[in-house]
Amino acid sequence: MSILIVGSVAYDGIETPFGKRDRILGGSATYLSITSSYFTGDVNLVGVVGHDFEASDIEILRNRGVNLDGLKIDKSGKTFFWAGRYHYDLNSRDTLDTQLNVFETFKPEIPENLRNVEYLCLGNIAPSLQSLVLDQVKSPKLVICDTMNFWIEGAREDLLKTLSRVDVLIINDSEARELSGEPNLVKAAALIHDMGPKTLIIKKGEHGALLFTGNEIFSAPAFPVLDIFDPTGAGDTFMGGFAGWLAKTGDHSPENLRRAVIYGSVMASFCVEKFGPERLLEISEDAIKVRYNAFKELSEVPAHD
Amino acid sequence: MSILIVGSVAYDGIETPFGKRDRILGGSATYLSITSSYFTGDVNLVGVVGHDFEASDIEILRNRGVNLDGLKIDKSGKTFFWAGRYHYDLNSRDTLDTQLNVFETFKPEIPENLRNVEYLCLGNIAPSLQSLVLDQVKSPKLVICDTMNFWIEGAREDLLKTLSRVDVLIINDSEARELSGEPNLVKAAALIHDMGPKTLIIKKGEHGALLFTGNEIFSAPAFPVLDIFDPTGAGDTFMGGFAGWLAKTGDHSPENLRRAVIYGSVMASFCVEKFGPERLLEISEDAIKVRYNAFKELSEVPAHD
Repeated sequence: MSILIVGSVAYDGIETPFGKRDRILGGSATYLSITSSYFTGDVNLVGVVGHDFEASDIEILRNRGVNLDGLKIDKSGKTFFWAGRYHYDLNSRDTLDTQLNVFETFKPEIPENLRNVEYLCLGNIAPSLQSLVLDQVKSPKLVICDTMNFWIEGAREDLLKTLSRVDVLIINDSEARELSGEPNLVKAAALIHDMGPKTLIIKKGEHGALLFTGNEIFSAPAFPVLDIFDPTGAGDTFMGGFAGWLAKTGDHSPENLRRAVIYGSVMASFCVEKFGPERLLEISEDAIKVRYNAFKELSEVPAHD
Repeated sequence: MSILIVGSVAYDGIETPFGKRDRILGGSATYLSITSSYFTGDVNLVGVVGHDFEASDIEILRNRGVNLDGLKIDKSGKTFFWAGRYHYDLNSRDTLDTQLNVFETFKPEIPENLRNVEYLCLGNIAPSLQSLVLDQVKSPKLVICDTMNFWIEGAREDLLKTLSRVDVLIINDSEARELSGEPNLVKAAALIHDMGPKTLIIKKGEHGALLFTGNEIFSAPAFPVLDIFDPTGAGDTFMGGFAGWLAKTGDHSPENLRRAVIYGSVMASFCVEKFGPERLLEISEDAIKVRYNAFKELSEVPAHD
């Protein structure tokens, strides 16, 4: 089924304890598109880049079958640029540079032929822009949304309006606590449920993820990765695997939502193995299945006797 | 099968955001004994208490079928006392008072009739005392050991001697990192394996636990508890459930070690529901099975298609 992705397309400068890249393809829409393209052939990206965006990067996305009709090339400026340095434990990072460039005035316009999209992925952009996208699409089967502390703190009213129209919210544990004002994640999930999203996924980094759906909770493990090279994009990649699996299957049952969470975790575990999206561009569908089975094995609880 | 538990028996003063107890039965050997008594009828405690230890607390342990032949009553002083205050998020605490009392000069003596014990649980005491216990027992089927940062930093040589004689080490994530000098837990586990313990369990509090055995890793979830009243003793309770299940079954296969980790997690999830060991003293074997199944359900990954 079709999937529409709205978010940033960027160049990133990344420093980790293992190396450095001065300028590498990045942005939430980039990770979301590349990842979901492993699950469905109908991936459509809406975003903006500047005059410096390279033809070879267009080709990377095209080679993954991503439809770029909704990618605006704004000649008036440069592509969104972000640079950051990860600390030794890779759990925290310093932002070294943020140049919004053409992203600063980005107003997502959904091409007419994409307004009937079935799966809508709202990457982490201003909640008012997420609402603008929701105004333009007709009746998607599922709306999946990301956000961050910056909007929870600075655009709470806008965010609450967006959330009332969202089916699945994917955030991390500190964001869930801040959004709900509640430290206990089970209670936080109930409060966020009341804001709109019937399904909530709380990402916990190296500790896996929690899926709250109806009265059921699913605890997904993280893959014990020996060498994390670069965590950039892991969260977007998780969302891309989750959304991609649902778009492939069209099944929103609690059981299939669990599968989607595992596919998200699988893709994120690949993402961190190399810089930026490098690893995501070289994996095979077989490798994805093998790792899915490794996740299943990793968390298999035997019957009690 | 028989289980021998060596550790502290104490009174605790506990403050949490939910209430306060000035003086409640505590200590690692107390939690270990009460918990493992749900799995095997042959639980034997070795420890020391002072003249102030109350007959009603002796009765609590006797009622759980715990053999107290190895509990020394040292009339020269008072029972080990610890007091602490938990912060709002319950993940950190301040120690308000520590009075070692008769525990300061404790030298564990294993009664002759207990030296043939099959399962040996070394609670968190000085590594030199753990070695002293190992010198006295004959050939236990399994030695399970706890330790803490205090000994990793202050008695490293003694600890390494003890670890070379230990089959299963149970520690938390920060302790595993400190003991191995390695932030990545998979690599840390391999380094600790080389110190002696063939099996390592890394507890991660609200994020569950990891079991490393041979080349296999098992990721156990934590139970999403709505109201954590008091985390005191949760780690010892985990160890008691783990050891108790193994003593009940005598099966050290990787699959059964997974069950043991889940039973440990089940018992710890009960422990935190009330103050001190209060909740542990009122649960039923049925409740334990029901919660085991809840853990299994919580982390069940469906086949990929």
